[in-house]
Amino acid sequence: MEAYLDNSATTSITESVRDKVIKALYEDYGNPSSLHRLGVAAEAYIKEAALALAGSLKVEPREIVFTSGGTESNNLAIMGAAYANRRRGRHIISTAIEHPSVHEPLMHLKDNGFDISLAPVDGAGRLKKEELYNLIREETILVSIMYVNNEVGSVQDIAEISSRIKERYSDIIIHTDAVQAFGKYRIYPKRDGIDLLTLSGHKIHAPKGSGALYIADRVKVNPIMFGGGHQRGFRSGTENVPAIAGLGQAVKELYTDFEEKISRMYKLKLMMLNGLAGVDGVTANGLPGDYGARDGGYSMELVKKTAPHIISLTFDGVKSEVFLHALEDKGVYVSSGSACSSHHSEPSATLTAMGLSKEKMDSTLRISLSDRTTEKEIEYALEQISNLYPVLKRYTRK
Amino acid sequence: MEAYLDNSATTSITESVRDKVIKALYEDYGNPSSLHRLGVAAEAYIKEAALALAGSLKVEPREIVFTSGGTESNNLAIMGAAYANRRRGRHIISTAIEHPSVHEPLMHLKDNGFDISLAPVDGAGRLKKEELYNLIREETILVSIMYVNNEVGSVQDIAEISSRIKERYSDIIIHTDAVQAFGKYRIYPKRDGIDLLTLSGHKIHAPKGSGALYIADRVKVNPIMFGGGHQRGFRSGTENVPAIAGLGQAVKELYTDFEEKISRMYKLKLMMLNGLAGVDGVTANGLPGDYGARDGGYSMELVKKTAPHIISLTFDGVKSEVFLHALEDKGVYVSSGSACSSHHSEPSATLTAMGLSKEKMDSTLRISLSDRTTEKEIEYALEQISNLYPVLKRYTRK
Repeated sequence: MEAYLDNSATTSITESVRDKVIKALYEDYGNPSSLHRLGVAAEAYIKEAALALAGSLKVEPREIVFTSGGTESNNLAIMGAAYANRRRGRHIISTAIEHPSVHEPLMHLKDNGFDISLAPVDGAGRLKKEELYNLIREETILVSIMYVNNEVGSVQDIAEISSRIKERYSDIIIHTDAVQAFGKYRIYPKRDGIDLLTLSGHKIHAPKGSGALYIADRVKVNPIMFGGGHQRGFRSGTENVPAIAGLGQAVKELYTDFEEKISRMYKLKLMMLNGLAGVDGVTANGLPGDYGARDGGYSMELVKKTAPHIISLTFDGVKSEVFLHALEDKGVYVSSGSACSSHHSEPSATLTAMGLSKEKMDSTLRISLSDRTTEKEIEYALEQISNLYPVLKRYTRK
Repeated sequence: MEAYLDNSATTSITESVRDKVIKALYEDYGNPSSLHRLGVAAEAYIKEAALALAGSLKVEPREIVFTSGGTESNNLAIMGAAYANRRRGRHIISTAIEHPSVHEPLMHLKDNGFDISLAPVDGAGRLKKEELYNLIREETILVSIMYVNNEVGSVQDIAEISSRIKERYSDIIIHTDAVQAFGKYRIYPKRDGIDLLTLSGHKIHAPKGSGALYIADRVKVNPIMFGGGHQRGFRSGTENVPAIAGLGQAVKELYTDFEEKISRMYKLKLMMLNGLAGVDGVTANGLPGDYGARDGGYSMELVKKTAPHIISLTFDGVKSEVFLHALEDKGVYVSSGSACSSHHSEPSATLTAMGLSKEKMDSTLRISLSDRTTEKEIEYALEQISNLYPVLKRYTRK
């Protein structure tokens, strides 16, 4: 038995996505810029995918720019918007719990004359909104807020925040890194006041190397890569047709039986949380309210305040890497930290901002689901975690 | 019968590359940054590909950075080297016949305080080397020269140029856009004095969305995308494992039976050139010497001074787009201009620099081969071109 519970690192590919990728890769291999039939056939995949993405977001296909993934989308959004709007001001607001692909471009901008403010979060990883609003100044051009945090699954109310900001400062550009949110929430940028939205393919059963940035028509963004002027100049370079085709296919399937998928994921998340709620030394991170389980475990109401697929658990007394490898031996695949920072062992910015001690951070695992995760996998993982934890704890103490 | 003669726009995928991509995409879908078995399995593809690329270039695997393609590699090389070395000087030299993914980053740097000089070429698209050397100043930090021109197949002697430059200015960084050269020439950067080398997957039967930049250990390059610090900080973002795996596989096959493949391509190129050499109104571009065919056609000696796979032909009196679509109807796929500039109809910088008139440029087709091109395809294309040209010419004149 195996349980793949590292879906926030990357997901498996569905058969239909795989078949679409192969077709675009092997059969319709033309360059979409070529004027002949093979070029036109390749371009058709891009148009089809743009329609699928635009449809799911209720935006125009021309507002979709395909990129090589979430990191590129975040870089394009932040650096592109900063440089295109720098005459209006050089102040940018973000949060203390962003992914490195948002945080690092901000630090790069800081080194290049921009002023960056990071809003704090509470112990559950939720933005302290009043403190965020207080950071806004006349020179603020961009606010970038992660939709769902990749480490603990805390969710920010982007629509409410955007509305509050735009009431007073209608010119401020709102960007959200929705890599962990797209496909888990119905996000409609035009309804929700989002001007720039980052999404990534490989978190939703599409290929690595696929991603997109929604750029609202009214928003000015400079390219960060220059060349042949593909994609209306926003992103030069021959389009990665197979990856784009796969992304489009995954998006088409994403919102089929959507409510059912989401409620199933919440059921599994609750099952995991409550399966460990009584265990001494185990705490769940990112749950608002009292941050702990009440008698009889967590309520679905509480859990629904967080993302359906991300579970962050601290196991006192056991190093997360030790636990991760012990679980791996049993075929249970989870993550320590975010697994997006490539073997880095720097302390997690998110957990730090939430106030966890270094010791707690070093003992934290992330368990992440997808709509393909089964009840059997959760049962099996729970069993293995419950068996291993007391053993590892005892071993570590010796 | 069909003849795909647009290989410099993009190539077909071999079966072995396809199978490798599918395996990495569908079976071994882990995130290479994940610490468990699935992550390690994904990472193994990257290591394998890096070894294959490094082996083919005789460099170290750590000197290979995987990117989303040629455009990103060129952007990273040029902007990355410019910003990392700007304290030494702000002067950069390139040529008048570069691909937009080199030229446009240079123009971006020009807008940001750098001084850019472009060396001219002769009528065959070959650098006027003395004029290039005369451009060098104390403040020159970077020289970027395309190895094989994508429109006419002219070849620059990078090794000789680098050696001449480094004799006097050993600190100058030499970059070459080898997108059209990699796999057609044996290029060894350490022997040839190349510090940065761009290559692209989809020109050598690997997937779109794959590419690499060779960065010599000694050379300082700043990243252009920021995030989780993947690939030793040179290129953040989850690696596109399937594309990288496909690139590695293609590279492994690239230099098998190399001499045979290359001489076959030259044979086909000569066949095409000589098949049209006697036709009134047809001229070949990019051939040095007298720029024309002698009695009995072009010599192999002359043709070997150009790349084995790119043929540029001007058909007086027929618009290239008209000819392209007429050939398409017969199943012959060629290109007008470079087909890398995404439906742009700006005049070709390369043909302009070579001194072609606007009329000649508008009547120029590119025919490009790969090691999979067959004699039958060339025969068929020759037949169709020979039949159509007089008809179209007459039609246009009416």
